[in-house]
Amino acid sequence: MPNNANDPNRKSWIEVPKNSDFPIQNIPFGVFITKEDVITIGTRIGDCAIDMGALQQLGYFNGIDLTDDMFMQDTLNDFISDGKKTWRLVRNRLAEIFDENNSSLRDNKKQRDVVIFKMDDIEMQLPVQIGDYTDFYSSKEHATNVGKMFRDPENALLPNWLHIPVGYHGRSSTIVPSGKNIRRPNGQTMPADATGPVFGPSKLVDFELEMAFITTDANVLGEPVPIDEAEDYIFGMVLFNDWSARDIQKWEYVPLGPFLAKNFASTISPWIVTMDALEPFKTESCEQSPAPMKYLQQKDKHTFDINLEVSLQPENSSETVISKSNFKYMYWTMAQQLAHHTVNGCRVNSGDMMGSGTISGPTPDSFGSMLELSWGGKNPIKLNDGSERKFINDNDTVIMRGYCQNKEVRIGFGECVGKILPAFEIK
Amino acid sequence: MPNNANDPNRKSWIEVPKNSDFPIQNIPFGVFITKEDVITIGTRIGDCAIDMGALQQLGYFNGIDLTDDMFMQDTLNDFISDGKKTWRLVRNRLAEIFDENNSSLRDNKKQRDVVIFKMDDIEMQLPVQIGDYTDFYSSKEHATNVGKMFRDPENALLPNWLHIPVGYHGRSSTIVPSGKNIRRPNGQTMPADATGPVFGPSKLVDFELEMAFITTDANVLGEPVPIDEAEDYIFGMVLFNDWSARDIQKWEYVPLGPFLAKNFASTISPWIVTMDALEPFKTESCEQSPAPMKYLQQKDKHTFDINLEVSLQPENSSETVISKSNFKYMYWTMAQQLAHHTVNGCRVNSGDMMGSGTISGPTPDSFGSMLELSWGGKNPIKLNDGSERKFINDNDTVIMRGYCQNKEVRIGFGECVGKILPAFEIK
Repeated sequence: MPNNANDPNRKSWIEVPKNSDFPIQNIPFGVFITKEDVITIGTRIGDCAIDMGALQQLGYFNGIDLTDDMFMQDTLNDFISDGKKTWRLVRNRLAEIFDENNSSLRDNKKQRDVVIFKMDDIEMQLPVQIGDYTDFYSSKEHATNVGKMFRDPENALLPNWLHIPVGYHGRSSTIVPSGKNIRRPNGQTMPADATGPVFGPSKLVDFELEMAFITTDANVLGEPVPIDEAEDYIFGMVLFNDWSARDIQKWEYVPLGPFLAKNFASTISPWIVTMDALEPFKTESCEQSPAPMKYLQQKDKHTFDINLEVSLQPENSSETVISKSNFKYMYWTMAQQLAHHTVNGCRVNSGDMMGSGTISGPTPDSFGSMLELSWGGKNPIKLNDGSERKFINDNDTVIMRGYCQNKEVRIGFGECVGKILPAFEIK
Repeated sequence: MPNNANDPNRKSWIEVPKNSDFPIQNIPFGVFITKEDVITIGTRIGDCAIDMGALQQLGYFNGIDLTDDMFMQDTLNDFISDGKKTWRLVRNRLAEIFDENNSSLRDNKKQRDVVIFKMDDIEMQLPVQIGDYTDFYSSKEHATNVGKMFRDPENALLPNWLHIPVGYHGRSSTIVPSGKNIRRPNGQTMPADATGPVFGPSKLVDFELEMAFITTDANVLGEPVPIDEAEDYIFGMVLFNDWSARDIQKWEYVPLGPFLAKNFASTISPWIVTMDALEPFKTESCEQSPAPMKYLQQKDKHTFDINLEVSLQPENSSETVISKSNFKYMYWTMAQQLAHHTVNGCRVNSGDMMGSGTISGPTPDSFGSMLELSWGGKNPIKLNDGSERKFINDNDTVIMRGYCQNKEVRIGFGECVGKILPAFEIK
């Protein structure tokens, strides 16, 4: 079935501001709540949120095989379960409905009033109920930087790293949508000069610039997803800030990995941009040497050229861009991550989320965490307002943005925003 | 409110075989499916499964504040959300209904026929939809044994171990109820004599003898659960086999912890035994030295005397008991685990599951894994049929059992059973 929604020449009758992340070629999926407390599945064009539940009730999805209440739900899990063919049919239909030449909804004010909302008038929710969340560690630059700082500069990459997309399980219950404030975590740390561990608010709160993909039901327990099929089970992508407390992490992480250092909160951008929308931005992935094992081997282009940037904004001050990276710097692809994750028969379900790991580029200004940008706190980062940061202060806001751009179209993710509040006071 | 259901002198009009794990003083909760494909919440007395959905429809829970379909669901999550007071009211009511002196249901054959099923006629399901699953590592003997084998015999315990209940996130999607067969996982390993990693079925599949607790909604994001309140948020416990592939684990686990070595499957016993039922078996926990930090300090008795055993049964052969342990050997208590888990504000929800970690006792016959029992494969375990095992063979079945016993009553968990099938063939 052709991916008609990607037609770069199509224009919408909804106005799309210049440099918007959400032209009619994007058509991402999300969940929002209106001022009348109605929760619905929707999409976005320009600065308008579109109620797909209302569209379905008005018959605009007739002819597509959907359950009656498919879009009148508070998560996308069921829609994602329906599989790639349905996603494409619905996205193509949305492109048609909002095509500048289609008068059906365009010229029906009564219908428009129940379908279209200003973004300022709605609140974005988590788009999926995330069953399981896995975080990978697939940027060679990031793994090398961390290895140099935390372990051995001469042998920064561990022996398994070039053979397997290293990953670990994270906490689903603390993943929040962009905009939710985050409390600085309390916890145990072992300061360099201390004789024993101490308790209190983390002093080294950090962001991690990541992207994440959302899966559909991919397999049955006990059977792997072959790498050639893996991309069919990926619904779309979001920006992802894997907040981290470096001092807690350092003390707790041996031998079973990060735990409280990561599970106090993780933030995602609320609109899931589909793999169909990202298709024009496919690009070559990194050369992999040594060659990966057979179950991880891929041909052709399998990553995406997605510009990423991170800003830090102190309270009552302006933003400073502190990192510019790109998703294409990842060493392991999403298909490789998914094939590896399931090679032992691990079941992957609709609504599961898999993070890329921190996406650091080759140059110091492209590193994806404060840990790397300030090189463990040795080189403070200068902000526009004259202040400096080694890690994140209370009331600082971190803003991640990401977009693809070619000569014809810009497809973006919007923002992934979170502000760090002071720690909860423990008596 | 008194915990009336624990009255040791109560007898049921349902026959309870001698040494049954399920006298009327137990009243665990589970989910089962009948031959007519009806799925329901239920409890068990002796060898009878009791349909609590049917009981509710017949009015037997009248006077308790429950939603109309509370027990006509396929998970216990909503019931668990209702909190400790409701759990106790319902359990007390069930004790009354099945008390030998209560004739209401006892003498009404028509009602009995829709309420009571033979265990052989139903199939147990997962009792909860597990949102997040965390596994701890709280047996000092196990952590010491593994440290001796995998790291440094002289410094087997890592520096953080005596200060924090070390834990990590696991995979919810592959937790299955007792009885489901498990495929041996494929994966990458690094044999001692190899020049690079190799791919194939794990050669070192192991069980881990654990117990797990199921929580109710415990906090809001950003706020901790104080240790003195932690037990109120624990609904009950199950037996738990945290299947592990030791060769995959050894190669993959640095630096982020076990991943594919554990997430191919985990098995739980299907009846959740409530903390109320376990109350008479509270016992002193281990002495903790150094004293834990304030947020982990507890007074009085906080663990449970639960006898545990593991049998291995080769295909077409008899069982051999290969380990006898006890839950009381755990160094960290469940309340300490939950207080630690949330001290950074991590949200804990109804239906989350937390594993104890492998429960090894002080003597070699009480070790909770093949890894420890055979000491890394050096001392094969002899089975009744004359065969030997270092790890688990294809078509071996592992059976875990657990029960509490005092002079008056025995409260048990039934069985946690899983059979290892040959690996999926990857072309």
